[in-house]
Amino acid sequence: MQLAERMKVIRGSVIRDVAVEIANRDNPNLIKLSGGLPDEKFFPMKELEEAAKKIFADEALFGEALQYGLTKGDTELINLIIERLNRNEGMNITFDNIIICTGCQQGISMTCTALLNDGQTILIEKPSYLDGLNAALPYSPNIVGVETDEYGIRIDKLEEALNEHPDTRLIYVIPNFQNPTGKAWPLERRKEFLELLKKYPQVNVLEDNPYGEIRFRGEHVPCLKALDTTGQVVYLGSFSKIMAPGLRIAYIVSDSKELIDRIEEIKEGLDLQCNQFSQVHVREYMKMYDLDEHVKKLCGVYKERCDALIEMMENEFPVGVTFTIPDGGLFLYVTCPEDFDTGKMLKDALDAEVSYIPGASFNADGSGKNTMRLNFSANDIPALKEGIRRLAGVFKAEMAKRQ
Amino acid sequence: MQLAERMKVIRGSVIRDVAVEIANRDNPNLIKLSGGLPDEKFFPMKELEEAAKKIFADEALFGEALQYGLTKGDTELINLIIERLNRNEGMNITFDNIIICTGCQQGISMTCTALLNDGQTILIEKPSYLDGLNAALPYSPNIVGVETDEYGIRIDKLEEALNEHPDTRLIYVIPNFQNPTGKAWPLERRKEFLELLKKYPQVNVLEDNPYGEIRFRGEHVPCLKALDTTGQVVYLGSFSKIMAPGLRIAYIVSDSKELIDRIEEIKEGLDLQCNQFSQVHVREYMKMYDLDEHVKKLCGVYKERCDALIEMMENEFPVGVTFTIPDGGLFLYVTCPEDFDTGKMLKDALDAEVSYIPGASFNADGSGKNTMRLNFSANDIPALKEGIRRLAGVFKAEMAKRQ
Repeated sequence: MQLAERMKVIRGSVIRDVAVEIANRDNPNLIKLSGGLPDEKFFPMKELEEAAKKIFADEALFGEALQYGLTKGDTELINLIIERLNRNEGMNITFDNIIICTGCQQGISMTCTALLNDGQTILIEKPSYLDGLNAALPYSPNIVGVETDEYGIRIDKLEEALNEHPDTRLIYVIPNFQNPTGKAWPLERRKEFLELLKKYPQVNVLEDNPYGEIRFRGEHVPCLKALDTTGQVVYLGSFSKIMAPGLRIAYIVSDSKELIDRIEEIKEGLDLQCNQFSQVHVREYMKMYDLDEHVKKLCGVYKERCDALIEMMENEFPVGVTFTIPDGGLFLYVTCPEDFDTGKMLKDALDAEVSYIPGASFNADGSGKNTMRLNFSANDIPALKEGIRRLAGVFKAEMAKRQ
Repeated sequence: MQLAERMKVIRGSVIRDVAVEIANRDNPNLIKLSGGLPDEKFFPMKELEEAAKKIFADEALFGEALQYGLTKGDTELINLIIERLNRNEGMNITFDNIIICTGCQQGISMTCTALLNDGQTILIEKPSYLDGLNAALPYSPNIVGVETDEYGIRIDKLEEALNEHPDTRLIYVIPNFQNPTGKAWPLERRKEFLELLKKYPQVNVLEDNPYGEIRFRGEHVPCLKALDTTGQVVYLGSFSKIMAPGLRIAYIVSDSKELIDRIEEIKEGLDLQCNQFSQVHVREYMKMYDLDEHVKKLCGVYKERCDALIEMMENEFPVGVTFTIPDGGLFLYVTCPEDFDTGKMLKDALDAEVSYIPGASFNADGSGKNTMRLNFSANDIPALKEGIRRLAGVFKAEMAKRQ
């Protein structure tokens, strides 16, 4: 079958490819530090069951949950999200500023359709969740990585990139507990970032914030959207990491009513609307329970796991291997000695029954070959410890080869 | 905010615009013959409740339903759909030939992304569900209507169009109980259609079949996909009309494994995957209950409603107004005298507390101004009768103006 020209540049997710490779091993003893999954044991199952039972008990409500709804999303759910964003994130948004979408991924996709001309440049942190930008591939974007330091994207390098690529249309950033590094930009860096952006009014920022609420250390730092005074920031939030990803409920926020309205038109063409049952389900959950309380509990669990992972790495990893120490989220990032190739080493790791995501998949230029992403949300502490023990063994064997 | 160039051609659904106009009236006495909704009273609520309770009772199952899953869709659900299509539709497909999507709408969208180059021609029945092709608007398609007769698309006119537009890439058709006419192509017409297509191997057919199972009169006629010997037909099926649209579960079927695999890559970029809870929910429903039995019941209800509508139209409509008599689906199509403008007349109809969809919205060239679509699935028989009484009054008043 003759495919469209654009299919030459469309590719699958590198991370999902690794997941398939792991799945093909079909090894129940494998400890997966590669995934990005929240732990299903901490989904609010009992509460979601009760919310569902409330729906089942009311024929009109159940009918509504199974019927077609609005493309923009369920009105009452939207209002609950607005209230929460204004309260917790310090936003000041109204019904005009938001639309429901199928995960942050659809938020990236629809924002690119609305804003990005074919071939224009997208800047992205180096490393970052590059797979997310597969959403832009139908428009043949020029994806350029910008250097980061321990505080996030480097403002001097960003300015250089903006000047070198005057066709830059979007900057895709994850300022909170980034995928893959787990880093959060401090307030000062956020302010500098937005200050620089004022000089480039034709550029929009796509702030992807699925992990922001999973802060288990330090003070809350306002998101870019809350600090933005020019309306340049388009914000993506999600229930995937704080409630359950299978429900696929997320949202796009923008000061521009025009953008939101036009994205609604895009969504009509894409899939008419999100799953109605899950919208009503999440809405009824939010009316019956305190989601913030649930998130607090989740943060406690993930903190313990992160701390256990860090302690184990400190004890087990050989000299020359370093790692980030995140204040939240699901991931941290390991840097091996320069001459390591974590892509090639994955086979040895799988043989040793532990997995990770090789770092090159997070870099637009394929660099970061000596890095890897580890996840601490999906496994309990004993499994995390055993996983690190195995991984340390792989590192030591790799080092021994070099001597 | 500066929008992408492609936004100049992206527009919202005309049918949803009418729905908004009607909603703005906020009149509880309005009888909506305009909608495309199945009647929620006939959703299998009790059964879906039981299937959900089975999920809630099993922590592993509930966890799976709330967790991330595969982009292609839930494996067990896919296998149940394959079994059903091979049994009921006479297909002969395997796991390689199918992917789950969010409603047929996302099926149209992803197929266009995979197959349609910018600016290429899509042929569509005249009239047809033009709004569905809004999915293709990001690629600036040339959408051309092809004349139909009482048996469906006219083969002579289709050949003319294919020769006149050698850049035709897709033909979008709804051969079963079409939206808006309710017509089903007889077997002979389907064979002629596929025979002609053999002369144009570069052209693919997008067969949209959300209504095919709602046949309440006459013999089953195989879908194009079942008759296709060249692999040119890409087929879309859905649970929206036979179970519940709010679940947003549909599927794309193609002989080409390559196409299905590449659409999976597109879907990764679009939204990672469909709602996982609804996939598990539908799967467990299908394992616990006989969906075919439910569809049979539904067909009985819609037949009664369709027949009541037809009888009422025969009695009430003035001479000069004609209509289609469908053997299934949710819609029929009314043709008024040539000089009627159903777009302008909608205001009078809304004043008379009845609504319909003006026919011009189903024609790429804006023709069909004297036609309208009526729905018979969403209202009970007394409401349908009263709706037609009101609509007949509008017709008579319009005719009186002309004398």
